[in-house]
Amino acid sequence: MRAGPSQEEVRRHNLGTLLRYVHVHGATSRAELTSRLGLNRSTIGALTTELSGAGLVSEETPRETGRAGRPSLVVRPQSARVYAYAISIEVDRLRAARVGLGGRILDRRETERPRGMPFEDAIRPLAGFVREMRKAVPDDARYVGSGLAVAGMVRRADGMVRLAPTIGWVEEPVGEVLGAELGDIGMLTVGNHADVSALVEHSRGAAVGLDNVIYLYGDVGVGSGIIAGGRRVTGHGGYGGEVGHMVVNPQGRPCSCGSRGCWETEIGEYALLKHAGREADSGREAVLNVVEAAMRGDSQAQRAVRHVGDWLGFGVGNLANIFNPEAVIFGGTLRDIYLVAAAQIRSRLNAIALPVCREHIRLRTPELGNDAALIGAAELAFEHLLADPLLS
Amino acid sequence: MRAGPSQEEVRRHNLGTLLRYVHVHGATSRAELTSRLGLNRSTIGALTTELSGAGLVSEETPRETGRAGRPSLVVRPQSARVYAYAISIEVDRLRAARVGLGGRILDRRETERPRGMPFEDAIRPLAGFVREMRKAVPDDARYVGSGLAVAGMVRRADGMVRLAPTIGWVEEPVGEVLGAELGDIGMLTVGNHADVSALVEHSRGAAVGLDNVIYLYGDVGVGSGIIAGGRRVTGHGGYGGEVGHMVVNPQGRPCSCGSRGCWETEIGEYALLKHAGREADSGREAVLNVVEAAMRGDSQAQRAVRHVGDWLGFGVGNLANIFNPEAVIFGGTLRDIYLVAAAQIRSRLNAIALPVCREHIRLRTPELGNDAALIGAAELAFEHLLADPLLS
Repeated sequence: MRAGPSQEEVRRHNLGTLLRYVHVHGATSRAELTSRLGLNRSTIGALTTELSGAGLVSEETPRETGRAGRPSLVVRPQSARVYAYAISIEVDRLRAARVGLGGRILDRRETERPRGMPFEDAIRPLAGFVREMRKAVPDDARYVGSGLAVAGMVRRADGMVRLAPTIGWVEEPVGEVLGAELGDIGMLTVGNHADVSALVEHSRGAAVGLDNVIYLYGDVGVGSGIIAGGRRVTGHGGYGGEVGHMVVNPQGRPCSCGSRGCWETEIGEYALLKHAGREADSGREAVLNVVEAAMRGDSQAQRAVRHVGDWLGFGVGNLANIFNPEAVIFGGTLRDIYLVAAAQIRSRLNAIALPVCREHIRLRTPELGNDAALIGAAELAFEHLLADPLLS
Repeated sequence: MRAGPSQEEVRRHNLGTLLRYVHVHGATSRAELTSRLGLNRSTIGALTTELSGAGLVSEETPRETGRAGRPSLVVRPQSARVYAYAISIEVDRLRAARVGLGGRILDRRETERPRGMPFEDAIRPLAGFVREMRKAVPDDARYVGSGLAVAGMVRRADGMVRLAPTIGWVEEPVGEVLGAELGDIGMLTVGNHADVSALVEHSRGAAVGLDNVIYLYGDVGVGSGIIAGGRRVTGHGGYGGEVGHMVVNPQGRPCSCGSRGCWETEIGEYALLKHAGREADSGREAVLNVVEAAMRGDSQAQRAVRHVGDWLGFGVGNLANIFNPEAVIFGGTLRDIYLVAAAQIRSRLNAIALPVCREHIRLRTPELGNDAALIGAAELAFEHLLADPLLS
């Protein structure tokens, strides 16, 4: 229980609220900010002047509006001048980007990650990407921090990768080593890949305005980011959302986590490729090949897609009973499966979920695609700035 | 996104915060309130004077403290003068209570509910209980509202019981009819039985100070109240937390919801009694008989308890992967099962849940027992008062 804030706290809160608004919504007129934030014109004027002085937003006169009277100034985030580095460690690739305030990707690099690559070998190319991108940064630009997203369970405090079964890492000090490698720009905030992707789909993508959302991301494994009551469900240590390890089939196959019949053993990449008779293949491309074969009428590929679609709907039904969500978003390979197996998924979902828990569910694909993880990693870094824009 | 509050909003917020503090923690000295709420002494003084003037708290000089100096006044919620009615509709009984501010049960009534009782027949005794209790209310006492908890999925807006499979009601206008029957005191706020119980265990019971908690309640069915990041997970329509209908055994038995292999078909009352060879029995008493027989060494009862304990640990493992909770609380018949099958539950939980998701889980029994549902129903009514103590 906390008492109400002081006047100074209110002012700083308002600065953060205004900056967050233009960070998420882009250029916005002072008039619109006045109505959206419920503050009066002079307060909005004072806040934007302060943010502008700090180099966080710019203000400009809009082009001819056709209306009479003095047009309202437009407030814009300084995307080219205020930036974060975003780093994403995924099953099949390593990515880095420079992301401007407002969520604009200004520069990016990526390379493949061979399966089985140890963590030490992943650090060098990622740090190299950041150093390369750094050369092109304008002198007057302001660095606010770096964010790291990992496809695994990662400790918030220090970026220790506790367990990443699909990547094959256990208790690896990724955050510490990467931070040291980055040197003076090693201010790292870490998060889970699916979790930060969900964050971005919620603020800027397919789930804008929805308070109860399940974002699923599939590759070899299945992760999720869950929004309940407008807030992320992260759990005590930040390890929540591991829906891929919800056991759905007690008689099922062994899982990389050591358990058996986890959801990802039925809907992950291996399950699809195995049912399609393509066990020798792997990766996103191989999954897409099966989906395309199914669309062309290949009956074994169709059976594989139906199998995965059926179990996908099953697990979504379970989650619907638990979360009563408004939307479920299918990302990664689950997006491709969803696009060809939507009817199957919906049918099984309807059989498993209670009518009241599923009655308002919309099934959707992501709007930001693979950029969500990079923008989401950057959001981890921007969060410090948005919480208190004048602190640093 | 909301801008910061005005001075007046801050004051009202602080009044609510102070009242909520003594409502939850009981009598508290002004000195302690000053440090707990982070407000200065004069602000605390002004707030308590205002709440005292509204008849919501009393202030008194404490008994000899043994310390030098003027002792700090003690602020106490006016439990005897400010009250709500709490009504609870459960599988086997109907209960009502008058609950004072501070969560004190001042009066209570209950009767059995025969299984299969239609909703119309449940309204009359409940309304009668309230009318009876009303006769003993002091003239100067203040009624703040009534709360109704139902063991089923209930619509917040109007108390329509959408689906209560264990009670056997579907789309019954319980809130409306009960509200009409109560007449001038029919200000009803409604909630789910397990959900309001969780709320109370979180604020006053076994989960105080924990931000990520799963409260499970078992009888014929299994419900839950889930706290994530310190807030209840209720879902879009308020129907979330239906963990009893998470399918855990696709090859399992048909469930009252129309699906198959739901968690409650493996850990609910019927499953236990069936495995114990006592299918003709029913109710809490029958469950306790099996548990006691298992403790005495009855091998069939032991097998039944093991079966249920195993599946209980299984489902808790799934929920641990999703929520990474700090505590799981076993209520209702699950409490009895937990007390004799803790090792079994923990062992299966450990096999299903990822180490990082379960490493800080404490397994607990409720502290408020069956009173939680009554106090929780009253909390629904008190919530309006606490949100803005001087509004009405």
